[in-house]
Formats: sequence, structure tokens, C-alpha cells
Amino acid sequence: MADLTAFLDDIVIANRILAHEGVVDGYGHVTARHPERPDRFFMSRSRSPELVTLDDMMEFDLDCNPIDQRGRTMYGERPIHGAIFQARPDVGSVVHNHAHEVIPYTVTKVPMRQMIHTAGGMGAHVPGWDIDGDFGDTDMLVRNMQQGRSLAKTLGSNAAVLMRGHGCTVTGKTVRDAVRIAVYLMVNARLLTEAMRFGDVTFLSEGEMTATTEMSASPLSSDRIWEYWTRRSGYSPT
Amino acid sequence: MADLTAFLDDIVIANRILAHEGVVDGYGHVTARHPERPDRFFMSRSRSPELVTLDDMMEFDLDCNPIDQRGRTMYGERPIHGAIFQARPDVGSVVHNHAHEVIPYTVTKVPMRQMIHTAGGMGAHVPGWDIDGDFGDTDMLVRNMQQGRSLAKTLGSNAAVLMRGHGCTVTGKTVRDAVRIAVYLMVNARLLTEAMRFGDVTFLSEGEMTATTEMSASPLSSDRIWEYWTRRSGYSPT
Amino acid sequence: MADLTAFLDDIVIANRILAHEGVVDGYGHVTARHPERPDRFFMSRSRSPELVTLDDMMEFDLDCNPIDQRGRTMYGERPIHGAIFQARPDVGSVVHNHAHEVIPYTVTKVPMRQMIHTAGGMGAHVPGWDIDGDFGDTDMLVRNMQQGRSLAKTLGSNAAVLMRGHGCTVTGKTVRDAVRIAVYLMVNARLLTEAMRFGDVTFLSEGEMTATTEMSASPLSSDRIWEYWTRRSGYSPT
Amino acid sequence: MADLTAFLDDIVIANRILAHEGVVDGYGHVTARHPERPDRFFMSRSRSPELVTLDDMMEFDLDCNPIDQRGRTMYGERPIHGAIFQARPDVGSVVHNHAHEVIPYTVTKVPMRQMIHTAGGMGAHVPGWDIDGDFGDTDMLVRNMQQGRSLAKTLGSNAAVLMRGHGCTVTGKTVRDAVRIAVYLMVNARLLTEAMRFGDVTFLSEGEMTATTEMSASPLSSDRIWEYWTRRSGYSPT
Repeated sequence: MADLTAFLDDIVIANRILAHEGVVDGYGHVTARHPERPDRFFMSRSRSPELVTLDDMMEFDLDCNPIDQRGRTMYGERPIHGAIFQARPDVGSVVHNHAHEVIPYTVTKVPMRQMIHTAGGMGAHVPGWDIDGDFGDTDMLVRNMQQGRSLAKTLGSNAAVLMRGHGCTVTGKTVRDAVRIAVYLMVNARLLTEAMRFGDVTFLSEGEMTATTEMSASPLSSDRIWEYWTRRSGYSPT
Repeated sequence: MADLTAFLDDIVIANRILAHEGVVDGYGHVTARHPERPDRFFMSRSRSPELVTLDDMMEFDLDCNPIDQRGRTMYGERPIHGAIFQARPDVGSVVHNHAHEVIPYTVTKVPMRQMIHTAGGMGAHVPGWDIDGDFGDTDMLVRNMQQGRSLAKTLGSNAAVLMRGHGCTVTGKTVRDAVRIAVYLMVNARLLTEAMRFGDVTFLSEGEMTATTEMSASPLSSDRIWEYWTRRSGYSPT
Repeated sequence: MADLTAFLDDIVIANRILAHEGVVDGYGHVTARHPERPDRFFMSRSRSPELVTLDDMMEFDLDCNPIDQRGRTMYGERPIHGAIFQARPDVGSVVHNHAHEVIPYTVTKVPMRQMIHTAGGMGAHVPGWDIDGDFGDTDMLVRNMQQGRSLAKTLGSNAAVLMRGHGCTVTGKTVRDAVRIAVYLMVNARLLTEAMRFGDVTFLSEGEMTATTEMSASPLSSDRIWEYWTRRSGYSPT
Repeated sequence: MADLTAFLDDIVIANRILAHEGVVDGYGHVTARHPERPDRFFMSRSRSPELVTLDDMMEFDLDCNPIDQRGRTMYGERPIHGAIFQARPDVGSVVHNHAHEVIPYTVTKVPMRQMIHTAGGMGAHVPGWDIDGDFGDTDMLVRNMQQGRSLAKTLGSNAAVLMRGHGCTVTGKTVRDAVRIAVYLMVNARLLTEAMRFGDVTFLSEGEMTATTEMSASPLSSDRIWEYWTRRSGYSPT
């Protein structure tokens, strides 16, 4: 039980970090697959990431049904997470966000590519999904499992997927991975937007992308940034 | 009375949110139509939105005469609000602001269009008003009812209107609607400005604009963001 | 004496506001002509504006000699202020700053023109001064009265002057005027930079510039923004 | 000993300033050569600059071996510092950072040149280093002395060197010099990026660069900004 509390606490910290670093505003969510039951995942009840506490954590099956709802309001876009956990057994955590820097890449033809070494893990290709393709006019939200599966299909084996006029969804092996990749995908977007105005941009090579993925996930890099972001977020783990 | 206090408190919160989220600086104002007397509206006395308290609330008729002035200084641009409340019985709240991101759209020919799903409610068309058209050289402020009516005429049945070299005015059914639309109109402007530099931009379809308008105003979306912004603003409701 | 303390307190508040609003960083300074002795002006000892207190205030003659130095370190660029106070009897306050948004206008040929109504008072023309013209290679600082007079000559009867690769200097009748114009000159620069990327920009007409100058300096506008900025700066007047 | 504590405290303050001013995020580091033993340097154990304390200080020889490790985790990129201290006896402090504003200059052909007077000390030329040149596909980090020496060779006798897709490394005679140059190199990058969009930019002349280098390092300028940044960082020296 103590272990599970620490595990859930990381999800709370993740919410706070994503809010504090500007990856999410009042919207967006982060989930983690249950460490002992791969057919379940944890997610806050419906509220803004900056306000999420340990008490808000709910458990869901991979079809996004709550295990014990107790009247709590749920996020409408659970299917983003459930469908990806179904399609990708290697994924342990999913971050969905509307980071401002990323959105221009969702409504234009400019590809998002890794330009900085700290973005290791974002992958060589970030595909773009348009809900209009399979579902026509909608309110743009991923509200049911069909929509979630369509998104997961476009995600494929990549680490992240762009969503037209909406935002992006980022995956990781752990909560810390997914958060770190989400933050630096945003930073990479910001800097790429600037650099492109200067003319041709040099991107990382395939080999560099592989090597920075490993480096970024290493304890030397990963623990340092997690300690820093946690402290900045102002949240004290339980 | 308790109900009216809660109603007025929402106007105070609205002032604080608009300041905290950067929609207004020291200038700008937000009003709400009286919930029981549609021929009246509430507005703070003249002070910066971040400083507004419950005690600052004043009541006006729709010609912008104070009901009980008690020596308080009034905003000079009350006619923006009175004229819109007269022309638009469906409008329950008006936000006037100088959001930086929006102003470039008021002095150029680039149209403001909905590009992100969170901007639901900003409408398919955001008309532009130039005070110079009907009134020649002025100090750019909407100081009398003739000017207010000219602005309301350009607003027409849209949700928002741009004002050349000045800012914009946003309407909503409720204070929470108007604030939410004002914030995301600003965000939409920021992201559209970035995206246009990449080349052709994909905007929301008519159907998507209608659906996101409904979605954004739903409690699931609207309550979450209001709780978040209120908390961030640091204001504790009465 | 009480009056003079209140007068000096406004200079302290001005320092804090300019720092808090991002007009100055660790450098920059603001001065005011002595209200009873037009041949004298007040300026802080040499320290960053955000740290200035009432005790730091020093008095100078218009050749920038200290009246009572008491070993305090003085700003090297006092001649900016002294020379302008000599040349312009109508000027009661001078702000010198390196606002980031303004600097691109000092190193290129793009003219700075009033585009927003809140920038009333910045004037129809903002001339550019290059220290290289009269003085060749220098460390760019205005270190002596000859350099100050050269700057004041370029300023002429305008409200503000750009300084190549350095920043700008803004004047006003009062400290509050000079601060307000300095802040909104910065905002005008930021928004003009954005708007120019969209294509042709509509600027204020001559008549609008005159009218917004008067409006911005009126108590209704001026007192509101001063109260707001003072509160934000965190400084409590004596 | 008291002197050494004050010396180390400046390194702690430098860490805090670099974090607070946005030069570093969770990554980046600053070092200083031992004031009495030029074959040694000081550096924090591996943690984010904003969190560094006096207790985190470690001593290294110029091959980057710890003098007394006591189980502490070390930064992987120590060779950036050791190699530069070996190659450049005139250098007393090294700052390595990923400042966002600088990175676009590392992946494009646009040269970084001094445009503002406060950037005195950044030098007339900022060379660019690509780890790919000598080492092929890597994780982009400078992990061994060969890589460090390659970087130091490209740095040559300049004050700073850009690192492709990674960031930059800045040197100074003292910790305060290196920090000040690192901050204003970032500011210069930000403003140059803006100014270039306006058309041709006027840069500082060679003579102006020499004069501003001296001016920026003078106590009048240097002490003022160090007091300001220290206060802003919230750190109280021991």
C-alpha cells in the first residue's frame, strides 16, 4: 500500500509539474497504468491539473469504466488514455495537453522534429491526427473508445501524436518519462519555431535521437530534472 | 440578497481572473446584467480590475446612469456595455479588454478565426470596428451612447468585436461565459499569429465551431476552468 | 518637508514600477526635477531600480554635480537627465531604460509610431540618436554633458528618443507621466513588432495622437494605472 | 577559510541567478577555478542549479577527477569545464547552459554578434561547435576529456562557444563576469532575433565592443547588477 501511495503521488506531482511548467492550463490530464494490474490505469477525477490531490485519484479499466466512481465527475477524454494503454503494452503513462507552442504544428504542414538534445524520447516522427478524418464535425474531444482507437492507430509505435486544432498526446514508460518528454516536446516546438525563421535548421541524426532518448531517461538526467520540477511546483509529496 | 452577493462576487472574480490571466492590465472592465432586472447592469467603480472588490460594485441603467453613485468615480467607457445590453437581450455579460495578442488583428487586415477547440464561443466571424468611421478624430474611447451604439451595431449578432488600435469587446450569456471566451480569444490570437508564419492554417469548420461552443459552455468544461482560474487569481469569494 | 517626502516617494515608486513592469532590469534610472528649485533634480544613488529606497535619493544641479554626496556612488549616466532638464524647461521627469521591446527599433530603420491608444504621450515622432555620430567609438554610455547635450538635441521637442544598441529615454511633465509613457512605449513597440508581420498597419492619426495624449494624462486614466502599478510593485509608500 | 566560503558562496549565488534569470532550467552548471590552486576547480554535485547549496560544492582537478567524492553524484559534463580551464589560464569561471534564446543560433547559419551595449564581454566572434564533427553520433553530451578538448579548441581565445542542438558555454575572469556575460548573451540573442526580422541590423563596432567589455566588468556596472540578481534569486549568502 505504501508503494502504491508513492506511485499515485508521482501522478499528483506530474499534474502539478505539467501545470507549473506551462504544458497544461486548466485542461489536460496525465495517467499511469496500474503497476500490478496492466488492465487498469489511474487518473484524477475531472479537475484542473494544478489542483489535483491524492484524494482525486480514480482507477479505471482499459475501456475507461471507473472501478469505484463514488459520484465523482470524470474527465470526458478518458478514451485517449484507455485506447493507448490497450494498443501499447509498452506504455506506462500518457500525458494529454494543449501546450501552446505545439498547437501551430497541428494546423499546418510543418513537421515537428527533434532539434535539441533534451528532447530525447520524442521520437523520429510525430504523426498528426485529425478527428475530422474518421468522425466528421465534432466538438474535437476524444469522447469514446472508437475515437480513442483512431487516435491510438495514428500514434502507432511513436512516442507522441499531434491533434489538429487541439494539442497533443505523449507517452512514456513511466510517469516521469511521459512528463519529461511532454515538457521538452514543448520546448523543442518553441525553439524550432524560432530557428525556422533563420533558414535551414540542422536536426538531430537518427543515431543522436536514439542516444539522447537513452540519455534523457537515465537517472543522472531524469532524477535531476524531476527533483527540480517537483520543487518548483510547490507540491510536497505525501 | 445572498444570491445577489454570490452573483456580484462572480463579477469580482471575473475582474481578478482577467487581470491574472493577462487579458486586462490596469485598464479594461467586465459587467453583468442584473439577474432580476434586465434594464440594469453591474460594473465596478473606476479602478483596475486586479484591485476590484465587492464594495466597488455599482448599478447602472442601460443608458449608463448610476442608480446610486454616492460620489464614486465611474469608468468613462460604460457606453460599451450599456449599448450592447440594449441591443442584445441575449447577452448577460460584457468584457472589454486590450489583450496584447488581439491588438495586431485590429490594425491589419488579417481576420481572426477560430483555430483551437478551447476557443468555442468566439464565433465564426469577429468583425472590426473603427471609431474613426462615424466619429473622426477622437481619443479612441467609447465615451457616449452614440459611440456605444455604433460599436454594438458592428458587433451585430456576433460574440466579439475588434476595436482598431484599442482592443476588443466580448460578450457571453453569463459572466463565466464572457470571461472564458475573452481568455481563449486571446489564446487563439496568440497561436494563430504563430501558426500563420508556418504557412496555410487549418481552421475549425462551421460544424466544429458550433459543437465547441456548446462543449466549452458545458459544466464539465466551464466549471473546471472557473475553479482553476479563481484559485490562481488568489481571490477568496465572500 | 512632508510634501517633499511624498514627492520623493513617487520617484521611489517609479523605480519599483519600472522594474516590476519590465521596463528596466538591473540598469536604467528615473529622475524628477525639484518641485521648488527648477535648477535641481533628484535621482537615486547608483543601484538597481528594484532596490531603490527613499534613503537612496540624492539631489543634483543641472550640470549633474551632487549637492551633498556623502560618499555615495552615483550613476554614470546622470548627463542624460541633466542635459534634458537644461534643454527642456517643460520636462519634469526623465526615464532612461533598456526595454527589450524597444531596442530592435534602435538598430534598424523601422520607425516607432503610435499604434495603440494607451500610448498617448509618446508623440508623433520618436527620433533615433547614435552616440557614434558625434563621439565615435565609446562604451555607448552617456558619460558627460557634451554627450548629454547631443542626446537632448536629437530629442528636440519630442517626448522620447531612441539610443542605438542601448535603449531609450522618455520624458514627462511629472514622474507619473514619464513612467506611464515609458511603459506604454514598450507595449506599443511589442505590439507594433507583431502587427508589422501581418502586413500594413494602421497607426493613430495626428488628431488621435493629440487626443490620446490628453486622455492618458487625465486623472481618470492616470490615477487608475498608478494605483494598479504601485500595488503590483509591492512597495508601500512612506 | 572564511575567504574560501565567500568564494564558494559566489558560485552558489551564480547557480541561483542563472536559474532565476532563465539562463538554465533544470540542467546547466557553473564552475570556478580554485583561487589559490589554479590546477583545481569547484563545481556543485549533480543537481539543478536552482537547488544548489554550499554543501553541494565539490573540488576537482583539471582532468575532472574529484578530490574527495564521498559518494556524491557528479555532473556528466565536467569535461566542458576541465578542458577549458586547461586550455585557458586566463579563464576563472565557466558557465554551461541551454538558454532557449541562444539555441536557434546553434542550428542555423545566422551569426551571433553583439548588438547591445550590456552584452560587453561576449566578444567579437562566437564560434559554433558540432560534436558530430569529431565524434559522430553521440548523445550530444561532452562526456570525456577528448570531447572537452575539442570544444575548447573551437572556443579558442573567444569568450563563448555555441554547441549545436545543445546550448552554449561562456567564460569569464570571475564567476560574476561569466554569469553577467551568460545572461546578456541570452538577452542579445533574444533582441537580435527580433531585430533581424526588421531588416538590416547595426551591430557594435570593434571599438565599441572593446569599450563595452571594459565598462560591463567595471564595479559601477558589475556590482549593481550582481546585487540586483542576488536579491531577485532569493538566496541569502552565508
